[in-house]
Amino acid sequence: MEQTQYGMRITFSGSPEEAESAVTEALKKVGFGVLTRIDVAATLKAKLDIDKAPYVILGACNPKIAHQALEMEPELGLLLPCNVIVYHDKADRTVISAIDPGEMLSVVGRDDMETIAAEVKALLNEALASLQ
Amino acid sequence: MEQTQYGMRITFSGSPEEAESAVTEALKKVGFGVLTRIDVAATLKAKLDIDKAPYVILGACNPKIAHQALEMEPELGLLLPCNVIVYHDKADRTVISAIDPGEMLSVVGRDDMETIAAEVKALLNEALASLQ
Repeated sequence: MEQTQYGMRITFSGSPEEAESAVTEALKKVGFGVLTRIDVAATLKAKLDIDKAPYVILGACNPKIAHQALEMEPELGLLLPCNVIVYHDKADRTVISAIDPGEMLSVVGRDDMETIAAEVKALLNEALASLQ
Repeated sequence: MEQTQYGMRITFSGSPEEAESAVTEALKKVGFGVLTRIDVAATLKAKLDIDKAPYVILGACNPKIAHQALEMEPELGLLLPCNVIVYHDKADRTVISAIDPGEMLSVVGRDDMETIAAEVKALLNEALASLQ
């Protein structure tokens, strides 16, 4: 597990399709459903006729934690769901990265959201660690 | 137009459904497609049996700018698309807010993304301003 500037990253020994399926299952086990999916490569091909290596953005959400956070901060939907990306990097490895909720929620500027950020980070970390 | 901690906000004189339709059209005019939609109220009802006032999270993306940004910063997908939320606030007004891309991209910590953030902010601002 590599901690990056605003995410947590692993490489996955399988195809992007396998990684997407595996991470969706791993997220489910820690209480996160995948609510959205953007196939970036397909979108760029369709809109701009650009060829891009596989790149998918999944939007993961734990309903209970999201509800709690939205009660505290009504506009938090601007920062939800938590993104998990699956892509082929330039070295042709399959990479899975999850947003670091601590970094993302830092823009809210509320100390009382740090507990929630830490809880979400631990769960996303657990999901990614299970795939290594 | 109200600038908030990490967003730009307007009130809309119509229902949340009308606001969603109007903002989708306004985003299209400035080159942003709505790629994802989360009906937060429906999700919380289905998953937790909680009644919440209308609250929708739209994921908006300008393919050309997204492509440019992803070429600069491969993991930027962790912060895409740009969220636009439509909800009923406690005073029963319909509110539309868009993420402030400058705040969101600040977590990347790269000065060379500021031009992109400013460009995106201007376009989202234009879309929201057209609905006032």
